[in-house]
Amino acid sequence: MQTTDIIGAIAATLTTLSFMPQVLHTLRTKDVSGISLGMYSVFTLGVSLWLVYGIMLGELPIIVANAITVALASTILWMKLRYR
Amino acid sequence: MQTTDIIGAIAATLTTLSFMPQVLHTLRTKDVSGISLGMYSVFTLGVSLWLVYGIMLGELPIIVANAITVALASTILWMKLRYR
Repeated sequence: MQTTDIIGAIAATLTTLSFMPQVLHTLRTKDVSGISLGMYSVFTLGVSLWLVYGIMLGELPIIVANAITVALASTILWMKLRYR
Repeated sequence: MQTTDIIGAIAATLTTLSFMPQVLHTLRTKDVSGISLGMYSVFTLGVSLWLVYGIMLGELPIIVANAITVALASTILWMKLRYR
């Protein structure tokens, strides 16, 4: 495994898992006034297209990372709509 | 240009630009209590590593998308630290 592959894998893991603390924070506080509806609408759509892209290429790392991110981002979007 | 390339380009554009409404929302409201410090710390670090990855591969689309995302995410992180 090359250094670039390792850096890419760490980068993908961090950007994917970073949404977990936001999910937990919002679940706990139900405080969504500071969260942008525009951001999570556009982001969830964008990550869904990344997932489609991964499926079309048959690239498992892209599929797994984006499936997790879609799940987390759409949960935040749902809470933004639910708790406001 | 193949369909997969077009979907990838749209996906990259959406996920990159999605942070712009969050930056504008937080600049305007200074309401950062609902924003997770953990998320933006880990996300900014992750996207910075994506930028390093793009530079090591010499892939301009990865460099440009992640340079913009680093700028936007680190602005949100800075506001989270500044306005709390």
